[in-house]
Amino acid sequence: MLPIAIDAMGGDNAPGAIVEGAQRAAAELGVPVVLVGRPDAVDALRGDLELVAASQVIGMGDDAGAVRTMKDSSLVRAAEAVRDGRASAMVSAGNTGATMASALLRMGRIKGVSRPAIATPIPVPGSTPTVLLDAGANAECQPAWLAQFAQMGAIFARERYGIAEPRVGLLSIGEESSKGNPLVKETHVLLADPATLQRSGARFVGNVEGRDIMTDTVDVVVTDGFTGNVALKTLEGGMRALVRSVLDALSATAVAEEALGALMPLYATLDPDGTGGAMLLGVDGVCIISHGSSSATAIVNAARVAREMIEAGVVERLRAAVAPV
Amino acid sequence: MLPIAIDAMGGDNAPGAIVEGAQRAAAELGVPVVLVGRPDAVDALRGDLELVAASQVIGMGDDAGAVRTMKDSSLVRAAEAVRDGRASAMVSAGNTGATMASALLRMGRIKGVSRPAIATPIPVPGSTPTVLLDAGANAECQPAWLAQFAQMGAIFARERYGIAEPRVGLLSIGEESSKGNPLVKETHVLLADPATLQRSGARFVGNVEGRDIMTDTVDVVVTDGFTGNVALKTLEGGMRALVRSVLDALSATAVAEEALGALMPLYATLDPDGTGGAMLLGVDGVCIISHGSSSATAIVNAARVAREMIEAGVVERLRAAVAPV
Repeated sequence: MLPIAIDAMGGDNAPGAIVEGAQRAAAELGVPVVLVGRPDAVDALRGDLELVAASQVIGMGDDAGAVRTMKDSSLVRAAEAVRDGRASAMVSAGNTGATMASALLRMGRIKGVSRPAIATPIPVPGSTPTVLLDAGANAECQPAWLAQFAQMGAIFARERYGIAEPRVGLLSIGEESSKGNPLVKETHVLLADPATLQRSGARFVGNVEGRDIMTDTVDVVVTDGFTGNVALKTLEGGMRALVRSVLDALSATAVAEEALGALMPLYATLDPDGTGGAMLLGVDGVCIISHGSSSATAIVNAARVAREMIEAGVVERLRAAVAPV
Repeated sequence: MLPIAIDAMGGDNAPGAIVEGAQRAAAELGVPVVLVGRPDAVDALRGDLELVAASQVIGMGDDAGAVRTMKDSSLVRAAEAVRDGRASAMVSAGNTGATMASALLRMGRIKGVSRPAIATPIPVPGSTPTVLLDAGANAECQPAWLAQFAQMGAIFARERYGIAEPRVGLLSIGEESSKGNPLVKETHVLLADPATLQRSGARFVGNVEGRDIMTDTVDVVVTDGFTGNVALKTLEGGMRALVRSVLDALSATAVAEEALGALMPLYATLDPDGTGGAMLLGVDGVCIISHGSSSATAIVNAARVAREMIEAGVVERLRAAVAPV
């Protein structure tokens, strides 16, 4: 396997936690890894990991358009390594918009794909995660793009979570096909046509609502990138507020240790560091987008997912499943 | 005070829990109450509460358009009682779309209001709730409507939660004013004009993200009814999944009783029965929309909120704050 290119400069904890994660991925998973970043920042940390030198860093707050001018940035160089066949995948915990733009610029789209989408796994206690897409790549969408997101999300759910016939739902504000905005209503018509999901081996279960996302009634939830990002962030904020309140309330009791211990498996399920990150579906290569706050463990898990996606040949499967618009 | 008209037929637990809630509201709060519904379903339960007879019931799954043909339905009769000065407010746990349509049909809009919006309080542990609007009345919106939602939401936050200068945020997918879809970008321009919120005594804090909703960084979150409904339902589903998982994990321990006891105040904060329901802002009368699963306690709290809104003269205050489009 070609090495996985890990952006050493991306994320709140870069480069320290990222390089540590890369080292652990190489040691624990046995996957080949190459770091991408500034030698002065990484050389002292990288041990015997290889480094692709990149002199620039696109910051978390920079505009995604920076990829056009910062051609020697770690993100652009990482995507370039995949394009040039020097790496099998890229992983970054950096600026999401710029990661996406780098992948698009250097890897290009899979033939027939109108727009790539960010597929984010949402943890579901006691079940496989629900794949939400688009989680933020495209603030404005057309119905045919959403139909492609459904096709791609189904492939991802099968390859990543082993779901034989993924159930695909369309995010709306009521189960009836008459509910929603014009985008949803037009997309519903496309998804209800059996031909749309035939090549991805998925089943359309109709409209779903926000409350279904964290249940086991649906495997893939399709929406535009604005709504998807709002839903994802709302859920993250809600979980954070609730988990913190639970911890505060229990910590003040005499039974704190036992009670908190009993909740550890649940916290592990919800921990974003454990999910292995989101995947940008539709670009011509594997691109894993990790959370900005990624720890070393998050990077290990992202590398694990990258390897799984490479071994599953997910890009080839996406190519076969997507119907050109 | 004129009586509060309570729809005895609306909600999953109607008429039993609704009538019980109405009786408790009259007894515990000392507010005058009148029930609206079918005599054969309510007479045996209502004790000495007055009943406005209505022969029809709009079901939870019926289309909102049913209000045009079912003129003797409990919802339409309740709204009519407010219009005719026989009631000071209406409360229903029934079909949300039909409740809204009844209120619009019979009470009409406040002069200058383009579209009414559903304002839903989202609990924030340790702080006052965040008012989210529109939580589902209008799946498609124009920027000027959202500006009015901001004006109305600010009045509601002040009268309901005593917030002197409510902080109004615009829901988007990034804090920068350049982020979002066209609706958000155009609304941002309107809200950034100091004149827009001047009459409602509120302050625009710019774009907010989903993760801010359950924090104390913002008091009013403005969005279109599609996005708002998705955010609300996503949060409800996420909270339900997490609370259930916490209960399951702790129930299996030897310290279940103490641990769960310590979490009771938090559960009370999150319990939708405790919030008193949402309010339809922009119609010419007080209309409280309770959760479909409302218990008797939820109805008591809804009656309490209705009384507060009447006593605060919220409709007059909305009339003064809204700038016609």
